[in-house]
Amino acid sequence: MLKRGYSALGVQDLLDEARVTKGSFYHHFGSKEAFALAVIDAYQANVHTVLDAVLADRSVPPLQRVRRFFTAVGEAYQSEGYLGCLLGGLGQELSGTSEVFRLKIDGCVAAIASRLALCLEEARVRGELPATLDPGAAADIIVNAWEGAALRSRLLRSGRPLTAVVDFCLSGMSAH
Amino acid sequence: MLKRGYSALGVQDLLDEARVTKGSFYHHFGSKEAFALAVIDAYQANVHTVLDAVLADRSVPPLQRVRRFFTAVGEAYQSEGYLGCLLGGLGQELSGTSEVFRLKIDGCVAAIASRLALCLEEARVRGELPATLDPGAAADIIVNAWEGAALRSRLLRSGRPLTAVVDFCLSGMSAH
Repeated sequence: MLKRGYSALGVQDLLDEARVTKGSFYHHFGSKEAFALAVIDAYQANVHTVLDAVLADRSVPPLQRVRRFFTAVGEAYQSEGYLGCLLGGLGQELSGTSEVFRLKIDGCVAAIASRLALCLEEARVRGELPATLDPGAAADIIVNAWEGAALRSRLLRSGRPLTAVVDFCLSGMSAH
Repeated sequence: MLKRGYSALGVQDLLDEARVTKGSFYHHFGSKEAFALAVIDAYQANVHTVLDAVLADRSVPPLQRVRRFFTAVGEAYQSEGYLGCLLGGLGQELSGTSEVFRLKIDGCVAAIASRLALCLEEARVRGELPATLDPGAAADIIVNAWEGAALRSRLLRSGRPLTAVVDFCLSGMSAH
């Protein structure tokens, strides 16, 4: 789904790849849409596992934890051959016509941003970010900018846009 | 195509909407892929028309011209109901499986960035950006970040992510 998108991926392709029967697929998922929503849930659970592991480590300064999160996600993209972010891919493809996917995916992106906002707030309190910085707004900016860099990394099949945007955002926030 | 994406848009839908015959469509475009590439060319020509109009106005300081470009694009998104960027949408959907679209769309994004880089270089020479700033790298960052904000604006059906990312990028560059 990350590689081919939603519409171009037939249920039969999934059945062939997973070696399951059509009956089994529809028994578990009911529809291709329900399957894609379950894929998004699994993807998002994985992102939260990374967030849990990286953000919980209080021995690391908060901005460093934010950087570590994006580094870990970038390494996952690399292992997949730089195909970008599933939330970004399905969000682009489906949110023009499906309110279900639009709201689902925006909720996933917002949830990631709100976890990063807690680290940015911690950095603000520690004096590592300007006192006037709005952590929620700043987290939205970095997550959104990351999504664009993920698209460009997919276009270029390279991790360079990812590291460039994280470096820029973190140093830009510190300097504001 | 912006709303529904590529795969979910049937040629018959296009024929119905444009009230042309299948014979006429295939006479002009040969294939759905060729049609989509022509749509990208038309979209990109439009972007360059905006770039020409905004960047050529030397009575406006260069960073202000960059801002005006993104404001104009954001206004176009608004007029479409915030469906984001066609290059980002088709780039996400198709670049995982099509080298033709991957290279085409990356070329379009890179061309936009290189035009903005000229303004950033002008700002650098005028002392409005740090002397050490790499205009090409900075233009890539702002264009990539914009693409992510365009995705979020599509998810939220709102222009807020667009203005937030431009404000952040332009002030972040100035402060570096």
